[in-house]
Amino acid sequence: MTVDDYALTGNEKQGLYKAIFSRRDVRSHFVDKQIPNDVLARILNAAHHAPSVGFSQPWNFILIRDRLTRQKVKESFLRERERSTAMLDSDTDRQKKYSSLKLEGILESAVNICVTYDPTRFGPFVLGRTSIEETGVYSVACAVQNLWLAARAEGVGVGWVSILANSDLEKILAIPAHVKPVAYLCLGYVGEFSDRPDLERAGWLPRMGLSEVVCYEKWGSYDPSGIWSDFSDGVSKVNEKIHEDNI
Amino acid sequence: MTVDDYALTGNEKQGLYKAIFSRRDVRSHFVDKQIPNDVLARILNAAHHAPSVGFSQPWNFILIRDRLTRQKVKESFLRERERSTAMLDSDTDRQKKYSSLKLEGILESAVNICVTYDPTRFGPFVLGRTSIEETGVYSVACAVQNLWLAARAEGVGVGWVSILANSDLEKILAIPAHVKPVAYLCLGYVGEFSDRPDLERAGWLPRMGLSEVVCYEKWGSYDPSGIWSDFSDGVSKVNEKIHEDNI
Repeated sequence: MTVDDYALTGNEKQGLYKAIFSRRDVRSHFVDKQIPNDVLARILNAAHHAPSVGFSQPWNFILIRDRLTRQKVKESFLRERERSTAMLDSDTDRQKKYSSLKLEGILESAVNICVTYDPTRFGPFVLGRTSIEETGVYSVACAVQNLWLAARAEGVGVGWVSILANSDLEKILAIPAHVKPVAYLCLGYVGEFSDRPDLERAGWLPRMGLSEVVCYEKWGSYDPSGIWSDFSDGVSKVNEKIHEDNI
Repeated sequence: MTVDDYALTGNEKQGLYKAIFSRRDVRSHFVDKQIPNDVLARILNAAHHAPSVGFSQPWNFILIRDRLTRQKVKESFLRERERSTAMLDSDTDRQKKYSSLKLEGILESAVNICVTYDPTRFGPFVLGRTSIEETGVYSVACAVQNLWLAARAEGVGVGWVSILANSDLEKILAIPAHVKPVAYLCLGYVGEFSDRPDLERAGWLPRMGLSEVVCYEKWGSYDPSGIWSDFSDGVSKVNEKIHEDNI
């Protein structure tokens, strides 16, 4: 076998890129339909196969359907949104726009999932976490991304609700002091996946060009030169392609 | 269109799952072959299309080929590994195993990428980051996972080197004080992708069962009952399937 044989086939590769480019943070368009057990299990299994520092697998997935629990989480959201709205008192245009955005689907979605980080798992010596402690929680964020992509592949929308107080989540979900809530997700089938992120469509912020976030050899060096001089072509081409295909 | 139409086709879905289950943290088996510009650009573009809190896109990707730079990073690794080896002085069996593991491919890989987090991007008010500050850095970790999966789809191996001092990286790569290094990645074509994670194969730690990380309605409640009573079937079935197919 040559090394190229390890690439996925054209169709398979297309599937991965389609999931990545058409994944959306969903807050609206949830429809009233349960997620079958096998579909939900596949989505969770994808999350569980994320990379983790020292193979520590430090995540838990709390599945929530209970109405009362969700109502309490929604109340936390409402309090936190009010607090953050006040931060924009000096910028009424942005404040008005912010207030008009739908930012969660806690009650309308089929299931909520709180993803947590347990730093004590297989510890205290976790291989590879001895120099940079945060790699533990980064592993959990990688698991969230796997979950999100698998859900997209299954036609299930996911919305990450970050306007919440972790202290509320800890109380509502009986999360012990040593465990950290990382993500609160709302999952459900949706009537549509938007062609662009909601915040881009609403004109909140623009999509940056790839060339604006790639540096060469050191931070802040955005101008490809030397061995990188022909690389900027690749970057601009792939950018155009995305805008053409809009996948 | 029915809501099911938003799912990927069978082949596309298979591609996403194949990337997720066969992705490996690669430290060995790098072969001497450059990554073509268009392939590297696609991998970076996948990373750039990760979710980000408030659409803040707070990442940068520093591409590193320079030999001297890599040599300095390797020296940081060697110092940090020595420090962490000493932590196992009271457990000589594990210490011996730890010392026998290959934990990085800094010099053998085709390119190194340092992924950083810039909390000032589009700030100071970042929508959705007002209650949980860490969601900014979680976005960057999600970008790393997109990068990793796209690389796998392209047949390119990725190894995350976490045994490094961030203070060394900041100095070597001229990263300013307000920017945080999140991941140091080594990319290259490989002679093989192992069927299981290296640390699982080496007997360092076992793969946990999915049912060990899924809780119902609140933290620590591992026993599905009530509306969840038929869900454990789904969990155990998907577990078996993974072990059979080994994808």
